Amino acid sequence: MNMHPEAAYARLTARVTRIATINEAAGMLGRDAAAMMPNGGGAARGDQMAVLAGLAHGLATEPQVTDDLAEAETVPPADQWHAANLRLMRHAHTRATAIPADLVEAQVRANSACELIWREARRTADFAMVRPALQEVFSLVRQRAAALAPALGLSPWDALADGSQRGTLAADVEPVFDRYEEFLRDALPRAEALQASRTPPLRPDGPFPLDRQEALSRRLSARLGLEPEHSRLDRSAHPFCGGTPTDVRITTRYNEADFSSSLLSTLHETGHALYERGLPTAFARQPVGEAAGMAVHESQSLIVEMQACRSDAFLGWLGAELQLVFGGVAAPYAPSNLVRLWRRVVRGFIRVDADEMTYPAHVILRFRLERALLAGDLVVADLPGAWNDHMQGLLGVSPPNDALGVLQDIHWYDGLVGYFPNYTLGAMAAAQLMAAVRRAVPGLDAALAQGDLSPLIAWLRTNVHARGSLLGFNDLLREATGKPLDPADFQAHLTARYLS
Amino acid sequence: MNMHPEAAYARLTARVTRIATINEAAGMLGRDAAAMMPNGGGAARGDQMAVLAGLAHGLATEPQVTDDLAEAETVPPADQWHAANLRLMRHAHTRATAIPADLVEAQVRANSACELIWREARRTADFAMVRPALQEVFSLVRQRAAALAPALGLSPWDALADGSQRGTLAADVEPVFDRYEEFLRDALPRAEALQASRTPPLRPDGPFPLDRQEALSRRLSARLGLEPEHSRLDRSAHPFCGGTPTDVRITTRYNEADFSSSLLSTLHETGHALYERGLPTAFARQPVGEAAGMAVHESQSLIVEMQACRSDAFLGWLGAELQLVFGGVAAPYAPSNLVRLWRRVVRGFIRVDADEMTYPAHVILRFRLERALLAGDLVVADLPGAWNDHMQGLLGVSPPNDALGVLQDIHWYDGLVGYFPNYTLGAMAAAQLMAAVRRAVPGLDAALAQGDLSPLIAWLRTNVHARGSLLGFNDLLREATGKPLDPADFQAHLTARYLS
Repeated sequence: MNMHPEAAYARLTARVTRIATINEAAGMLGRDAAAMMPNGGGAARGDQMAVLAGLAHGLATEPQVTDDLAEAETVPPADQWHAANLRLMRHAHTRATAIPADLVEAQVRANSACELIWREARRTADFAMVRPALQEVFSLVRQRAAALAPALGLSPWDALADGSQRGTLAADVEPVFDRYEEFLRDALPRAEALQASRTPPLRPDGPFPLDRQEALSRRLSARLGLEPEHSRLDRSAHPFCGGTPTDVRITTRYNEADFSSSLLSTLHETGHALYERGLPTAFARQPVGEAAGMAVHESQSLIVEMQACRSDAFLGWLGAELQLVFGGVAAPYAPSNLVRLWRRVVRGFIRVDADEMTYPAHVILRFRLERALLAGDLVVADLPGAWNDHMQGLLGVSPPNDALGVLQDIHWYDGLVGYFPNYTLGAMAAAQLMAAVRRAVPGLDAALAQGDLSPLIAWLRTNVHARGSLLGFNDLLREATGKPLDPADFQAHLTARYLS
Repeated sequence: MNMHPEAAYARLTARVTRIATINEAAGMLGRDAAAMMPNGGGAARGDQMAVLAGLAHGLATEPQVTDDLAEAETVPPADQWHAANLRLMRHAHTRATAIPADLVEAQVRANSACELIWREARRTADFAMVRPALQEVFSLVRQRAAALAPALGLSPWDALADGSQRGTLAADVEPVFDRYEEFLRDALPRAEALQASRTPPLRPDGPFPLDRQEALSRRLSARLGLEPEHSRLDRSAHPFCGGTPTDVRITTRYNEADFSSSLLSTLHETGHALYERGLPTAFARQPVGEAAGMAVHESQSLIVEMQACRSDAFLGWLGAELQLVFGGVAAPYAPSNLVRLWRRVVRGFIRVDADEMTYPAHVILRFRLERALLAGDLVVADLPGAWNDHMQGLLGVSPPNDALGVLQDIHWYDGLVGYFPNYTLGAMAAAQLMAAVRRAVPGLDAALAQGDLSPLIAWLRTNVHARGSLLGFNDLLREATGKPLDPADFQAHLTARYLS
């Protein structure tokens, strides 16, 4: 080995920059596929994504990387950022070399093919139509998990979960979810009873022209700090945030009869987008400069949407704004009514429409089922029935068809396993971060009451965004809030909001 | 050398498929940059495009290709398609290996950077702002031309022109353009005099709601044969056609006061899109399965827009449709008025707004200036003045500022030299093809009078689209029309339409 650790590290940073740039291209194409692409383009797009994934994987696994890593690791890094960057390079290399190149491309193709069938299967509520494709997807997911697990020293599910949020372990998640289930069993009926005892909310009187909703979405998003020069808001069937830190793409969907969906999802996606915008530019396209994981990402969308924008203070400001934008009868825009309208608990079938309190039940169900699938305790053919049983057990409702059940989410049909817990870990982290912000920023509610999130965002910039991937999920929370993940803050938030 | 020509050919087809797939991804990103991307994303996008170009170039120039080509060429190909495919692979290899890899990425980055500055320079009519970036772009273009010329045995300009339409030689183009200039010197004043002697056209009375214009554009595009399952129509500052054969993306722009621009540009881009849709699927992602070049491409948009859709027959049908869609006073929608409205000659400053007769003058100007730039007879700093002199010489008008002059087109600022002649070669080919269709398809005008382009498109499918890159520009015309490019057909078309 040629002992030039600095040169080896420089080669590594150049290489990961190149890989990140390919992944940016792939991400942009994936986002186009979701928001723009006509169905007929699906096969070609699958090929494009597969080839890009193969090229990125090829660069990540060239023999030179092994030598460069070993060489770079022979000297202590300049500082904690470079130390973390090198650690993350090593981790990514372990993951990449564990997976054979042909499996990488096979997964992209199988996922892409399955996703196309799934769209049609969901439209027609026909699980049987997509079953063979899903079996193929899961068969490849199991191969991936089996390849990753020994390399990472993790269980198969943990090895997959590590891909979306490093360090997530089923053994940690399981008790958190079990305790939440207990909490919910008691809290949900009480919240429902309290809700039933109050005046039902008035719905604002539509129609609400789409262009006016869109202008409002753009204005709010900019008010929260998302610069139009570095972002776009488009329409898609499902809201999401994609793109790159200098070109963030968010989407929402519009319903002429009800502006709630476009408004709230825009606030949510803006939270994601602000995180991307606040990542440390000095480490752009380096592992340590990336977002810290999908649970952290979700905490940033939820602290904006759920914690800040559904607070009494912000809704007070927002109501007057909405009245100005949409006109009509004033009563539905009264803050006390918006609180009843947008803070309701409902035992629904659809995860993305769920309220804060029941949302984790949807996640717990998916966590349990995907672990059973991975362990071989459940086969794909039995998935719809198992789904409905768990819904009955957790929320006491049964979907009337599979479109409202096992077919509702894209994730599994796109090969994404180990991902769902991030939504609830993120919700819990958001509550914990908000409690810390409340302690640290005295004028927070006064600002929210002016429709001003800048004190919150400034705190998040420093304590979350600008830290990139320097810290793992629990360490990030520990430095920002004084403790690792503590679900008590989320339960306290729900108790204050729904049970008093 | 290991004598397995079939295996070598199979390796080559797999490789070019991979390269074409990367180029598809790059094309989609380029299209997003033009239609969707916020300006702040420009730098990152430039990097993405550069990395993809570098990867494609790397695959195209691996030493294995040299061996595979030599081996595959040892046996006679199975048929003319495989023969042409192999010839085109050899040609692409000669081009790719002539250009150093670092020049490929340097050009993409310089073009991308210059294009961003150009947008602002054009907005503020400030050529000096973009001059240094354009000098850098031209310096790299000259390096490219100098590298390509000896490898291809062509002059520098010819070597560049070969990149957008194989076989285009300045020595062939020059006399065609000189003769057109002579024709124009006589024809344009006569057309203007005739026009002045007639009733001026009535403008349909707006406003024309954008969503109604968009619905009309979609309906016409589908009526012409472009399937929504395999295409999208979006909005962008400049209309274009991009994407891939199964996912064609066209754009248009809308003006609430005048629907002409969205309508006519949609018809034009639909012509491009139908060509992509009609390419031979058996050779998808192979060189012989691609469009035959940009002059042929332009012939397909212009035969739809200019030859078919601005014909008396089609305008007769279209007028009634427009009246139904937009309502209001009927007189402007009379076919005789639409003819006067959409078949006017005007000495304008802007190429993309030019009529059929003056359009070639805009092209001739660019052809002459870029040849002078490449030869070193003109420096970038003197370009605005030279531009205005040539406009005065060709059309007798001088742009009042550079936004209406040298800054109007993206091409040079994006490193595209040797491209402009394709617009006029395409217009001439369109006239020649239309004359052949008229001979071959007796019911053509009757169909056009019903708004039915299917007999025309069917003929084009067989004689142009489905042939891919099997034939070069002149051979394609020869087989389809009985002769190589003959500008007389275009002049006859203009004479019939504007001078009688």
